[in-house]
Amino acid sequence: MPVGTQGSVKGLSPADLRASGTQIILANTYHLMLRPGSKVIRDLGGLHRFMAWDRPVLTDSGGYQVLSLKGLVKVAEEGVEFRSHLDGALELLTPERAMEVQADLGSDIAVTLDHAVLLPLDPAAQREAGERTIRWTERSLRRARTLESPGGLGQLLFAIIQGGGSASLRKEMATRTAAFECDGFAIGGLSVGEEKRETWALARATAEALPVDWPRYLMGMGTPLDLLEGIACGIDLFDCVLPTRNARNGMAFSMDGPINIRNAEHTRSERPLDSECACEACALMSRAYLRHLHLAGEILAHRMLTLHNVTFYQTLMEAARRAIERGLYQQYAREFSERYRERGGDPPASA
Amino acid sequence: MPVGTQGSVKGLSPADLRASGTQIILANTYHLMLRPGSKVIRDLGGLHRFMAWDRPVLTDSGGYQVLSLKGLVKVAEEGVEFRSHLDGALELLTPERAMEVQADLGSDIAVTLDHAVLLPLDPAAQREAGERTIRWTERSLRRARTLESPGGLGQLLFAIIQGGGSASLRKEMATRTAAFECDGFAIGGLSVGEEKRETWALARATAEALPVDWPRYLMGMGTPLDLLEGIACGIDLFDCVLPTRNARNGMAFSMDGPINIRNAEHTRSERPLDSECACEACALMSRAYLRHLHLAGEILAHRMLTLHNVTFYQTLMEAARRAIERGLYQQYAREFSERYRERGGDPPASA
Repeated sequence: MPVGTQGSVKGLSPADLRASGTQIILANTYHLMLRPGSKVIRDLGGLHRFMAWDRPVLTDSGGYQVLSLKGLVKVAEEGVEFRSHLDGALELLTPERAMEVQADLGSDIAVTLDHAVLLPLDPAAQREAGERTIRWTERSLRRARTLESPGGLGQLLFAIIQGGGSASLRKEMATRTAAFECDGFAIGGLSVGEEKRETWALARATAEALPVDWPRYLMGMGTPLDLLEGIACGIDLFDCVLPTRNARNGMAFSMDGPINIRNAEHTRSERPLDSECACEACALMSRAYLRHLHLAGEILAHRMLTLHNVTFYQTLMEAARRAIERGLYQQYAREFSERYRERGGDPPASA
Repeated sequence: MPVGTQGSVKGLSPADLRASGTQIILANTYHLMLRPGSKVIRDLGGLHRFMAWDRPVLTDSGGYQVLSLKGLVKVAEEGVEFRSHLDGALELLTPERAMEVQADLGSDIAVTLDHAVLLPLDPAAQREAGERTIRWTERSLRRARTLESPGGLGQLLFAIIQGGGSASLRKEMATRTAAFECDGFAIGGLSVGEEKRETWALARATAEALPVDWPRYLMGMGTPLDLLEGIACGIDLFDCVLPTRNARNGMAFSMDGPINIRNAEHTRSERPLDSECACEACALMSRAYLRHLHLAGEILAHRMLTLHNVTFYQTLMEAARRAIERGLYQQYAREFSERYRERGGDPPASA
């Protein structure tokens, strides 16, 4: 899922998103509840109509973004108290409010409020956040069942699983969360500073404790190689800002490794970003032109690199789906990863 | 002609430009000679290929932008000495260099170097700038005939006419310029602070002194009502940054008068920018959504308002062409102007 933080996937129109192969986008509850406000969006018929996007939308619960705010954030049993980054107003995000806002937005998939804690964690804090997440999940789901979306459309409910860096606590949380009546599961609190090896061990432990036929969504990850690894762990859905954020920094993904479009080597390059890509940028524009636009501060550079990066991710996921359908996923992932690593691999973390 | 200052019409792709009805764009010699450099663009096959734009391009001579630079600009008979706004490097723009750069860019229409002087002018300074423009026109055309564009494509040459605020001097300059062998005429040095009434008297005097069948291009103007007035004065071509620049400031043109998308009245408005427009923004997006995108600083707002404004201008020019073909231009211009003025008219000059 490309990330449409404020109701827009950076520079892309609905037609661009469809052309990129995007099936579903993520929108951020935190940003939209503050601006333009969820009641405004409800009054305008919900997020799909507001954004002119007629394919699925998943909204997050807002919890992660609130907990990541700089400044005073107080977590209590009732909910999370915080100040708006726009005007400093004091706000309270409770499990109930998170679901009310998402019902107003009218997303196809809403996510329960969780208590994520950043690493390092002592076992007592991990346990406390996990137990609170279970209680908030129950409250979120109970409230959500009483709500109606704009136009009366049904909303699927995903429950978030926490558990910090402990595989056994994550398994326990997954099992207890799976007892709730919901439509899918989101795995939160990973990729927050731990080693990659640990990330996958925890993701796998969590996924294995979940019912086999329910969708699993790994929140906030990752690079192309991460996605293939996640699929191998049993993950079905991902969201990540890398393709869109890196595009604005001048970084393009390609089968030949990451491209920094600012580099002087592209000054006279007639090559497209990725000769295997069919997006509008790769079909029409040279690296030389995109480099020029980026250095000149032209927004067409951001738009075209964003379109390319999102297309790159969607093409990768489409190929993975086809390989799974043919029973050849492991072979596909191994071959892609070997070739991709040989040619430069994932971008540096600082990109 | 929408203005593609740095080789891009702010946020619009070639497909967007075609969808807007744009037949020809303007690109700025001054900006492109400094970055990425005209030799780079020549080596990459010229501006059309560089920008992936397969319709006509007109380049200006760079003179006006150089003379508008803040800081040290010295005009001598040889040319204009100035410092690059990018790195402070000392540069000399001569009539010969202006044409060499434009040949490198490979525009379809190149424009001679002129000496424009901002108002107020004393008669001696007007005469001096006019005479120098005549000499520079001759040098520009002589050099241009020896040059070749990338791929050997032919380039049309437009000669600029100056003459300050004096109708008789402008007529004289037009008559003397018309004696040169060239493909069209550009009227420069208008709309630089004088009254609108004076602008049109000077444009009309200049146009009337030019041969009837040659194209006439009025540089750097204007609002929708200006364009209709200009056509009545015998002008065929215009360029203006208003549709693109105003879009970035949140101002949209519409048949119902100018719209400031920031205004609170649009917070819950489901209306399109202009109910008579068929652009992507008007077909899909509400004012409420565009207002939200603008306030949130999303580049999709700039792109969509730019697309709309350019489409508005092209639709206006298309209607004017149809009216001319039917011999009904005066009636068309009067009816449009009355309706448009009644509903709010041109945007305030500060927009």
